[in-house]
Amino acid sequence: MTDDAGPRGNTDREAGSGQDTEKETKIHAQLKEGSLKLYELEKELPAPDAIRVRREYIEKETGANLRKVGIFSIDVERVVKRNCENMIGTVQIPLGVAGPILVKGENAQGHYYLPLATTEGALVASVNRGCSAITKAGGADVRILHDGMTRAPVFAARSIVHAKEVTDWVMAHRDEIKTAAESTTSHGKMTDITTYIAGTSVFIRLEFDTKDAMGMNMVTIASAKVAEMIAHATGAQLIALSGNMCDDKKPAAINTIMGRGRGVVAGVKLSHELIQKVLKTDAKTLHEVNYRKNLIGSARAGSLGFNAHASNIVAAMFIACGQDAAHAGDGGTCMTTIDLLDDGVYVAVTLPTLPVGTVGGGTGVDCQHECLNMLGVAGSGNPPGKNAKKLAEIIGAGVLAGELSLIGALAAQHLARAHQQLGRG
Amino acid sequence: MTDDAGPRGNTDREAGSGQDTEKETKIHAQLKEGSLKLYELEKELPAPDAIRVRREYIEKETGANLRKVGIFSIDVERVVKRNCENMIGTVQIPLGVAGPILVKGENAQGHYYLPLATTEGALVASVNRGCSAITKAGGADVRILHDGMTRAPVFAARSIVHAKEVTDWVMAHRDEIKTAAESTTSHGKMTDITTYIAGTSVFIRLEFDTKDAMGMNMVTIASAKVAEMIAHATGAQLIALSGNMCDDKKPAAINTIMGRGRGVVAGVKLSHELIQKVLKTDAKTLHEVNYRKNLIGSARAGSLGFNAHASNIVAAMFIACGQDAAHAGDGGTCMTTIDLLDDGVYVAVTLPTLPVGTVGGGTGVDCQHECLNMLGVAGSGNPPGKNAKKLAEIIGAGVLAGELSLIGALAAQHLARAHQQLGRG
Amino acid sequence: MTDDAGPRGNTDREAGSGQDTEKETKIHAQLKEGSLKLYELEKELPAPDAIRVRREYIEKETGANLRKVGIFSIDVERVVKRNCENMIGTVQIPLGVAGPILVKGENAQGHYYLPLATTEGALVASVNRGCSAITKAGGADVRILHDGMTRAPVFAARSIVHAKEVTDWVMAHRDEIKTAAESTTSHGKMTDITTYIAGTSVFIRLEFDTKDAMGMNMVTIASAKVAEMIAHATGAQLIALSGNMCDDKKPAAINTIMGRGRGVVAGVKLSHELIQKVLKTDAKTLHEVNYRKNLIGSARAGSLGFNAHASNIVAAMFIACGQDAAHAGDGGTCMTTIDLLDDGVYVAVTLPTLPVGTVGGGTGVDCQHECLNMLGVAGSGNPPGKNAKKLAEIIGAGVLAGELSLIGALAAQHLARAHQQLGRG
Amino acid sequence: MTDDAGPRGNTDREAGSGQDTEKETKIHAQLKEGSLKLYELEKELPAPDAIRVRREYIEKETGANLRKVGIFSIDVERVVKRNCENMIGTVQIPLGVAGPILVKGENAQGHYYLPLATTEGALVASVNRGCSAITKAGGADVRILHDGMTRAPVFAARSIVHAKEVTDWVMAHRDEIKTAAESTTSHGKMTDITTYIAGTSVFIRLEFDTKDAMGMNMVTIASAKVAEMIAHATGAQLIALSGNMCDDKKPAAINTIMGRGRGVVAGVKLSHELIQKVLKTDAKTLHEVNYRKNLIGSARAGSLGFNAHASNIVAAMFIACGQDAAHAGDGGTCMTTIDLLDDGVYVAVTLPTLPVGTVGGGTGVDCQHECLNMLGVAGSGNPPGKNAKKLAEIIGAGVLAGELSLIGALAAQHLARAHQQLGRG
Repeated sequence: MTDDAGPRGNTDREAGSGQDTEKETKIHAQLKEGSLKLYELEKELPAPDAIRVRREYIEKETGANLRKVGIFSIDVERVVKRNCENMIGTVQIPLGVAGPILVKGENAQGHYYLPLATTEGALVASVNRGCSAITKAGGADVRILHDGMTRAPVFAARSIVHAKEVTDWVMAHRDEIKTAAESTTSHGKMTDITTYIAGTSVFIRLEFDTKDAMGMNMVTIASAKVAEMIAHATGAQLIALSGNMCDDKKPAAINTIMGRGRGVVAGVKLSHELIQKVLKTDAKTLHEVNYRKNLIGSARAGSLGFNAHASNIVAAMFIACGQDAAHAGDGGTCMTTIDLLDDGVYVAVTLPTLPVGTVGGGTGVDCQHECLNMLGVAGSGNPPGKNAKKLAEIIGAGVLAGELSLIGALAAQHLARAHQQLGRG
Repeated sequence: MTDDAGPRGNTDREAGSGQDTEKETKIHAQLKEGSLKLYELEKELPAPDAIRVRREYIEKETGANLRKVGIFSIDVERVVKRNCENMIGTVQIPLGVAGPILVKGENAQGHYYLPLATTEGALVASVNRGCSAITKAGGADVRILHDGMTRAPVFAARSIVHAKEVTDWVMAHRDEIKTAAESTTSHGKMTDITTYIAGTSVFIRLEFDTKDAMGMNMVTIASAKVAEMIAHATGAQLIALSGNMCDDKKPAAINTIMGRGRGVVAGVKLSHELIQKVLKTDAKTLHEVNYRKNLIGSARAGSLGFNAHASNIVAAMFIACGQDAAHAGDGGTCMTTIDLLDDGVYVAVTLPTLPVGTVGGGTGVDCQHECLNMLGVAGSGNPPGKNAKKLAEIIGAGVLAGELSLIGALAAQHLARAHQQLGRG
Repeated sequence: MTDDAGPRGNTDREAGSGQDTEKETKIHAQLKEGSLKLYELEKELPAPDAIRVRREYIEKETGANLRKVGIFSIDVERVVKRNCENMIGTVQIPLGVAGPILVKGENAQGHYYLPLATTEGALVASVNRGCSAITKAGGADVRILHDGMTRAPVFAARSIVHAKEVTDWVMAHRDEIKTAAESTTSHGKMTDITTYIAGTSVFIRLEFDTKDAMGMNMVTIASAKVAEMIAHATGAQLIALSGNMCDDKKPAAINTIMGRGRGVVAGVKLSHELIQKVLKTDAKTLHEVNYRKNLIGSARAGSLGFNAHASNIVAAMFIACGQDAAHAGDGGTCMTTIDLLDDGVYVAVTLPTLPVGTVGGGTGVDCQHECLNMLGVAGSGNPPGKNAKKLAEIIGAGVLAGELSLIGALAAQHLARAHQQLGRG
Repeated sequence: MTDDAGPRGNTDREAGSGQDTEKETKIHAQLKEGSLKLYELEKELPAPDAIRVRREYIEKETGANLRKVGIFSIDVERVVKRNCENMIGTVQIPLGVAGPILVKGENAQGHYYLPLATTEGALVASVNRGCSAITKAGGADVRILHDGMTRAPVFAARSIVHAKEVTDWVMAHRDEIKTAAESTTSHGKMTDITTYIAGTSVFIRLEFDTKDAMGMNMVTIASAKVAEMIAHATGAQLIALSGNMCDDKKPAAINTIMGRGRGVVAGVKLSHELIQKVLKTDAKTLHEVNYRKNLIGSARAGSLGFNAHASNIVAAMFIACGQDAAHAGDGGTCMTTIDLLDDGVYVAVTLPTLPVGTVGGGTGVDCQHECLNMLGVAGSGNPPGKNAKKLAEIIGAGVLAGELSLIGALAAQHLARAHQQLGRG
């Protein structure tokens, strides 16, 4: 193993490392007695050592062997500051590729290999089959439907009369609010502001174009500034910077209806021949599976999601690409539609809320950065925002591939069974 | 670095490996011309080599350097068969620990360090603070509310009369259905069956005790058997083995109301003193933040989730512990409540649907297995099911810690601002 | 006009009635000064006079002429005790009929004229057209999907541990609870009990077969008995007899999924010829309107209802038949499906929650009783429950007629427009 | 009975009316044989006679006596043309009054008696008690949150690319669309336009200020014009003038979030003394009932409504005031909040969607017109729109009264029970 490639400094008890000295022995004792906190280790030791010592401490405390966790190759200096406190190593998620898939977006154009980090067997294979169908069909059209990250502070008003005065004030001072909001960021632009009243609670939902960032931090900082301004001017009391009408990391109709982050729609037309050849089923069956499962079944279940397994693809690509994995659930609100045409089907996925970015967050962690590079979207785009939109478009195409493949499989199985039934009859 | 610890065989171009021979050159050519598929590499080469060759091919095709992706320590023999097709390496997710947290469940009892795989800065620190508050308060009570994985095939009936006959037949043959279902599994037990009609669509929702497995595969196989039986007996046509009333990986009221997988509730009482000391706020403010944000805000947003950021903790623990990351969104349907008491507050989180397991899926991947070991829940429990319930309880406690900490932070911030406002006034 | 038919005693200032005497003058003065309350008039005067005096008082206070309100023919003795306090007269709602419609239910079988009380022009005509199509097609099949009225008291537990103990106690004492519940009613039977926990809040949802009554009162009384028993045995504190998991008069997924009151499904097959002749459109267009409007549109809107205007028919029939008009919104959760067949379409409506009864509530008011008689369902059925189910089935068929007609009209219009567009092209 | 007050011409078999002649005998025969349709009677006879003959025919066909249905006093000439086809009489709904209630809106200011048409015993008494509490507390503040009726046609696009072109075209031609829309109405003003894509389905949601009309017809006519324009310009195919993102008469998050018709919020502060005196409970208990029932219970039930029984009041006032009763379900989406203050509670109801009007629809029917007169809101307001807003504000105050009273009753009962429990302990 060459030096520069090796996961240096974080395998257990490396020979001759010389770290296992007095200092560390003392640190262990301090941790044990509580005079030193686990999270303070980075103050005492270089990051790789802090991680190792912490891991060893956890091993002792829990009796677990954490050897594989302790072997990693990513550069941790930045990670311990920006991405993860109390770090003890990494978890390695198997990374597969699906594709190539031909994407015809406004930003992403060309053939892409999709990075999918997953432990769910068959997922990569399934997406791969969908990519093949789409590419053979001439590619997936993709369009951005929405582009704006939101944050909605909540205020307490003294009465409903006061609540109305607050929202009136806000709507009358949109320009000042925009100026104040944008003073906190060099990139973001405030694009919308809506107000909601629920009794004495007032919600101000601010929306920003956050360019290549997913933008939640940017928007939170801007919202703090705006919230202070509103509280000062109206006498409303700020209760929480996030009032859940944002609505972050919770499935919510406000997001599916109005959008949050990037919203995308992707579609492809498949001929009868292609359906038969790649998916081993027919147009009518594909349509019926989608109709009874994704539309009627989801409706009957009181669901906010009308798809087969969109969040599988979103989760796998989010993890691979350094996106916030807690947002993967947003993929679950996808709506998949299959229109029956004379000459085949038109399959589409509509993803109202995909909070993605190519700068900030986990995008700078080494492996994740490499995955973004695979898609040609690492870092800032030109113009700013283009890379994040590109990523959203590619994920949209990936979801289309995944939906197509699973619905096709269900349909083929169903056909198979129908045949069996006939045979028995 | 000792031999057995090293990520041997998958760093690029290892000196003297000798693999880069004629055979591989030929394979590259075949891949390029399409006569060999990327997914066929494991048939030609040992898994580590197949992964490396595939990665090199992707590097060439995309121009991306995937060096860090290519360095990993997990054993890939099993992974390429069970967890990930078309593998090119791994993505390393930073792993932090929070805790110890004292958990007082029916299954999990004691102090635990929580493994959190995340790239979201401040998350581990936040959960850590919550763990501290909970442990100081005497620990988190946790109870299992529900234990049953579901699958709901959808059938087409000829008419609504036929649809009703199908559901009548099913309810009259529960015992035979149970026998048939359980004949497909050595562990699972069918625990419930409910039927739903939507026009001519009939949904049969089967629920199983899947012991230590998350159970979706087990349940799918059993459902296939049952579905065939129903179709044969009633003449209804099976449309899809999953009819979205399961409802898997989509936010759905049916899951939040009736539960899916393990449902858990966790709670802790905090005294005024502790609130002040650890969270730097007071009982009334904590209550008000939760009331206006998590209850009123979420309600006003048409949300199925009434929490601050539960899916952050669920996602981070799911990824660390080899759970299906696409289920992390289920954490978003958590309901957090803060009751105001004379002597403090009672904080609780109710998670109606946590699909977790300690065997199968990603739980056998090395790093993930180590994380499960940290919690003492790797593999089958004694009795079977105990480990999965333990894991669910620990995650429930972790979510409680996360909610407490973020709501506390919002509340403290709000107090700070209130003070600022007063100062200005 | 014959004496017994006349709205005697409540027209204004009838000649020679002699009531306008000293006593009433005194009463007016007492009302004015507040020593007598408006609702106390029935203690002083016979019901018709009390109504008249109250109306005259309101006329004076508001300056409004309420002459038409004051003319009515219903017997008010019972009404003022059971249906309406502070009565000043009646509001006359125009009553139209649609039909005959052939209904093929399990309880309702034959041709029916549907009574529709409405002020919405075109509604009766529209339903009438739907009835015609259905009857020509051989009638509407209807089935009862669910039969059970619910009430869900909410309790406060001391902790989540206590909450779990409460639900455990309830599930372990189902038989005693059933006995206690049924001791409060001569007709009702407890058919199900489910429990839900949300933090320290415990919800016990009780379901009853209420025979021919809509049953909410019956169920509330039984729930009071059960709630007391649970509180006494477990130490949980009863917070409200109705805890909104019932869920009464609010649109809620728990009702659409699990049913409340009577749930019905109605369906009919229409041939291509009939679609063309009666609805002036074709199968494919009918299907597409339903697909894009009722399924995709409603899903995109975050709706719990997937229909065109089901609540129009439910409201009009509920008002005509003395049902609780505040339940009419439950009709809005209907799901309408149109399956495309080789030889036409199969149209169905699924109404998960129709709280109807033929005894109690407004069913005994004279006009309403007459409307129930039109359908042959007034009073108790034989066996008990049959009349209420019959009514539910007939309303289900009526909704089917209404949906068919409006969707047909939209489809025909769309065709017309398509033609216009072609003409222009 | 004086002539002009009597329900002339529609009681059964009036002596000497002379109508029962040959002509009618012939008509009966024609109806029987089907050569004359029931709905054609108004062409043959004056409205009162047509109604009578039709009723007599229904009586014969069904065997039901419809005497009370046949006695009415409203003028039917206009009703048979505008409000109800196939009319056979009326249904009389008992009308009670609650109040006076002091309303402090922006449009409605003063004391009002609320007309409530209902057959649900105790409702009027309950609202009356709430009115008393509110008036004693100094009146209900009310504000209009939203004013705009919507219609959302749905179009089919050829692909998602085409779908995006359609929405782009619409947003680029807002001014022309507004001009076209407003050309169809003398009163309405287009106030907003939003677009939604779901695969190949495109929804254009148009919002109008409809002044004193509820406005659904006005908006539908304007939407037809706009839809034609869009279809012509973009080549998208109009599928249905109403695409269910309106969303009319279905419970939908889009309406609760964005509003439809008039949205109102009403609130009142109650002192400890008043709570004790009028509601026989205390602030803390009131708060807790609302917290556990209306917020937590509804959330746990997957409900779009967070109230106790708002639709009871909305239904009773809608029926009394000639509003569309099928909209009463919209009241069910009300959110009721009770904030605990040092000196009492602040109670508020937020009704996001109240589709009301004072002209058109059922507002011109005699009894209903009288009820509107009781509130001083019949006909067009000055300026236009003022009467409809006034009505919305008064209904909002009425809902506040109803909520306060029922929550108070639940709270008092709960206290009583708590006492009982103590006694037993």
